[in-house]
Amino acid sequence: MSLPFTVKARQRVIYGDTDQMGVVYYANYLRYFELGRLEYFAARGGNYSAMEAAGLGLPVVQANVEYHASAKYEDVVLISTHVSEVRRVSLTFDYEIHREAGGQRLCSGFTVHACVSKAGRPTRLPAELVALLTS
Amino acid sequence: MSLPFTVKARQRVIYGDTDQMGVVYYANYLRYFELGRLEYFAARGGNYSAMEAAGLGLPVVQANVEYHASAKYEDVVLISTHVSEVRRVSLTFDYEIHREAGGQRLCSGFTVHACVSKAGRPTRLPAELVALLTS
Amino acid sequence: MSLPFTVKARQRVIYGDTDQMGVVYYANYLRYFELGRLEYFAARGGNYSAMEAAGLGLPVVQANVEYHASAKYEDVVLISTHVSEVRRVSLTFDYEIHREAGGQRLCSGFTVHACVSKAGRPTRLPAELVALLTS
Amino acid sequence: MSLPFTVKARQRVIYGDTDQMGVVYYANYLRYFELGRLEYFAARGGNYSAMEAAGLGLPVVQANVEYHASAKYEDVVLISTHVSEVRRVSLTFDYEIHREAGGQRLCSGFTVHACVSKAGRPTRLPAELVALLTS
Repeated sequence: MSLPFTVKARQRVIYGDTDQMGVVYYANYLRYFELGRLEYFAARGGNYSAMEAAGLGLPVVQANVEYHASAKYEDVVLISTHVSEVRRVSLTFDYEIHREAGGQRLCSGFTVHACVSKAGRPTRLPAELVALLTS
Repeated sequence: MSLPFTVKARQRVIYGDTDQMGVVYYANYLRYFELGRLEYFAARGGNYSAMEAAGLGLPVVQANVEYHASAKYEDVVLISTHVSEVRRVSLTFDYEIHREAGGQRLCSGFTVHACVSKAGRPTRLPAELVALLTS
Repeated sequence: MSLPFTVKARQRVIYGDTDQMGVVYYANYLRYFELGRLEYFAARGGNYSAMEAAGLGLPVVQANVEYHASAKYEDVVLISTHVSEVRRVSLTFDYEIHREAGGQRLCSGFTVHACVSKAGRPTRLPAELVALLTS
Repeated sequence: MSLPFTVKARQRVIYGDTDQMGVVYYANYLRYFELGRLEYFAARGGNYSAMEAAGLGLPVVQANVEYHASAKYEDVVLISTHVSEVRRVSLTFDYEIHREAGGQRLCSGFTVHACVSKAGRPTRLPAELVALLTS
């Protein structure tokens, strides 16, 4: 059995990501997840804009985050992204975020995406996208 | 059996909440959830700052969001918040977000919070807080 | 000489607006300014979406913020917005933000907006908009 | 006359940075400016956390942004940062943001920072900081 294709993105934590607890605000991990997806598509040779231009979207229908430890100002975080499931009209990305220095696991989670037409109707995932994601 | 004590917060969607799909960016619903919690505490006669001043925090350990329909620019959204579970060292908030005009349900979800000391150690929820939340 | 037509918007400061200095992050005042503009248009009987639907936009070409004192978590801030200048293809909004409790002035600033067509070309401000803003 | 010491930071534009106009939301350029400052300090061998630990802060007292062209989703932007003025109790950073692909100038601006003690009192900039910034 082969390991899933995983892409690592790198992000520096700025002041604007933190809150007054002195750690990254909980909603901002979903921004990091999105950067993970973007870099995942880029690494796979696809890009999300092309899909949108073709009249399809992959809006998030569910997001789940578990917070294990806190990212802090000036930390560099590594976002590991892989596709954990591809279904007929939806797919799931899994994420893990670690602090680069020391390697501590900070956060894990997943997002489920529906494939929809411009009109918002559920649509079969394009065969090329499935091929791209499962190769 | 009584219904849970539920608090409604009201928020206008600004341009800065949207993304290029023309709808509210998925991470921003966690900001709305937080506003829901804040208004919940305020309506309950508590406030979160007092807890922090007492050396306790309620960091989020898990967040889950299900996206049913999209909030749009200029919408007013209503965030309904209630406490669905109180345990020894943690508690869970449930949320539902509706569009004020028309009442469509846009989003639902929950957040689980651990009670921790300043040093980050799990700590029993203060009796007054439990009383406040379960009365 | 008459005073300019001024609209007040009201916003509760959430955790997600703060940074680790324990005060509202400096970029977020531009979000408050935008809420001020939105409520200004609403109070004037106009709305920004209608302008966009008509193929015009009012992108910001300059923004200036002066920070006098800090807004804090749980503060309610009042954003006072008025139009300080209307020119042929651009206009300027002025803002002042005060803390509701006590009335301290926190921030002031302005944004300059160009009127542009969908293609991004500078376009004369529609007469109805000028009438709306200068009445 | 020597050119000022300039540091370039690199940032990928995510969906969460855009708004429904399909371009980066105007407030988010202040986030990019902050990343510029952070990387500037890092490149200078200083770091902002050390200053905070020493009981000093450099809060922004004024920010100005001019928007020339729009950054878009998936763009990589380059943020060039230099110190344009060092005074007794304040200093000014200048910024320019270009799109990496093609090099178009998107945005320029400055931020003025006061040096303050923990109590918020204006304080002389530490000699080591001045040396660091003007060498």
